[in-house]
Amino acid sequence: MTNPTHTLSSRVAEGGALLKQDMATRAAVMESAIDHLLPPTTGGDARLWDAMRYATLGGGKRLRGYLAITTAALFDVPEAQAARVAASVEMLHAYSLVHDDLPAMDDDDIRRGQPSTHRKFDEATAILAGDALQTKAFDILASSKTHESAEVRIDLISAFAEASGAAGMVGGQMIDMEGEGRALPLAEVSHLHALKTGCLIRYSAESGAILGQATPDLRARLRSYGTAIGAAFQIADDILDTTATAEELGKTAGKDEAAGKSTFVALLGIDGARKEAARLTEQAIADLAPFGARADRLRDLAYYVIERRN
Amino acid sequence: MTNPTHTLSSRVAEGGALLKQDMATRAAVMESAIDHLLPPTTGGDARLWDAMRYATLGGGKRLRGYLAITTAALFDVPEAQAARVAASVEMLHAYSLVHDDLPAMDDDDIRRGQPSTHRKFDEATAILAGDALQTKAFDILASSKTHESAEVRIDLISAFAEASGAAGMVGGQMIDMEGEGRALPLAEVSHLHALKTGCLIRYSAESGAILGQATPDLRARLRSYGTAIGAAFQIADDILDTTATAEELGKTAGKDEAAGKSTFVALLGIDGARKEAARLTEQAIADLAPFGARADRLRDLAYYVIERRN
Repeated sequence: MTNPTHTLSSRVAEGGALLKQDMATRAAVMESAIDHLLPPTTGGDARLWDAMRYATLGGGKRLRGYLAITTAALFDVPEAQAARVAASVEMLHAYSLVHDDLPAMDDDDIRRGQPSTHRKFDEATAILAGDALQTKAFDILASSKTHESAEVRIDLISAFAEASGAAGMVGGQMIDMEGEGRALPLAEVSHLHALKTGCLIRYSAESGAILGQATPDLRARLRSYGTAIGAAFQIADDILDTTATAEELGKTAGKDEAAGKSTFVALLGIDGARKEAARLTEQAIADLAPFGARADRLRDLAYYVIERRN
Repeated sequence: MTNPTHTLSSRVAEGGALLKQDMATRAAVMESAIDHLLPPTTGGDARLWDAMRYATLGGGKRLRGYLAITTAALFDVPEAQAARVAASVEMLHAYSLVHDDLPAMDDDDIRRGQPSTHRKFDEATAILAGDALQTKAFDILASSKTHESAEVRIDLISAFAEASGAAGMVGGQMIDMEGEGRALPLAEVSHLHALKTGCLIRYSAESGAILGQATPDLRARLRSYGTAIGAAFQIADDILDTTATAEELGKTAGKDEAAGKSTFVALLGIDGARKEAARLTEQAIADLAPFGARADRLRDLAYYVIERRN
């Protein structure tokens, strides 16, 4: 007989340290890749590049980039190649945070424990830096100097655009704003988060399969894994927004409730939300079955997204 | 003996009517393509798609899209294929206008004689609509259902990203803002406009050569043509900003001077600016020599950009 709670706890204890170390190693690789891709300049546009670097370097969990690198490793894709894809998705994620934090959007002064980009620079610079980070993300995928064929790059760019545009992340942000101050049913909350954060996490997990030219079955499994951990990640975010302090989060706490947003916690209660996150984690782990022990860090990650403190 | 002034006037008179008709025909093709690529929706994201449609449909000169279609026609690229590239560049141009008009940027309430997107909707929707239009522009190039090879699509996406990102259009916008209230020398004003508006116009002219898999020489000629008319276009814009009324422009007049921007008119005087624009036009026309009579509309266009009233 398996005790799922015990399995979960011991698994986190065993894999947590290895995951933490691996995430730190890969984060350093990504940091270096981003630093290289966004060199500081000295001309009249120096402020723009400074803001782009400020928004992307020096922090963050790098969850999306880690997924790209780790799923690519399943198919023996060289790390330098995967690191560019990781840098690209981290830049896109950073642009979305820069624009989300603007006064006209979530109006947030703190991000990762530091002034948000429009507070550090100014609103116009933040708008432009976000715009240019999005462009750069696509540019990196198109102009890869490494070994992908044009077909692979087009496949990546299509999946990336689908995940991040009006039918993905940005569409989710719009639905999120439109839903403020109204009580949304669970299906709608799930749908908006599937778009707002889920699509890009799913793409990140899938990107390794695209780079590795995986079989349709393995690619579908990584998509499914990404979808599940994306949903679990958002539920954990809602739980943290209720239970953690701003110091732990490195950003404003309790802001969803303050903004009148419908959350998983409001709909399911804390215990119900935790159970749903655990169910999604188990499903994500089931998706990894064909990869055997090579996918252990991805298994650890599935636990990490619901156990994290920030 | 050639009298350049006479040549210019008679040329405009002869070609102007044909160009006007051709631009209207191509604009209708683009309008239909954009309408198809940005279908209205009814879900929680309807406001986003409405704003994207508002910002892109129903107006504008479509100069960039016209260049894409007309240069592609030189290489017998099917119009439906070129129309997608044209729609893509018009969406990118529209996103840049939506973000430029925001209160934190140029704070403009009028665009093409109508309320700017953030005035018609709201600031958050305008930010997101601009973001999603940029994504869609790249998506269209990647996911083309027509006949381009993956290599051609990657070539287009790379050139497009280079022209529109931090080293192109957005970089130019930043330099423009940084230069407000300071007297910039002519070289710097030329450089900022080459980035801010020139790069995307140059890309538009080049895109037909990329689609048509032109020889390097012909592609370089269309790049050079695009660079010259991009510069002439901006000088004409500066002249119009000084001499035209808001009614003629469909946007606020005299705003460059009010914003303390260095303009070609301020640096060269009206007559000097007109002469420089005419010189660039003649150079653009010289670039078209190898294309013979097939490029007549592109010649007419070179005159049009400096003769237009809005």
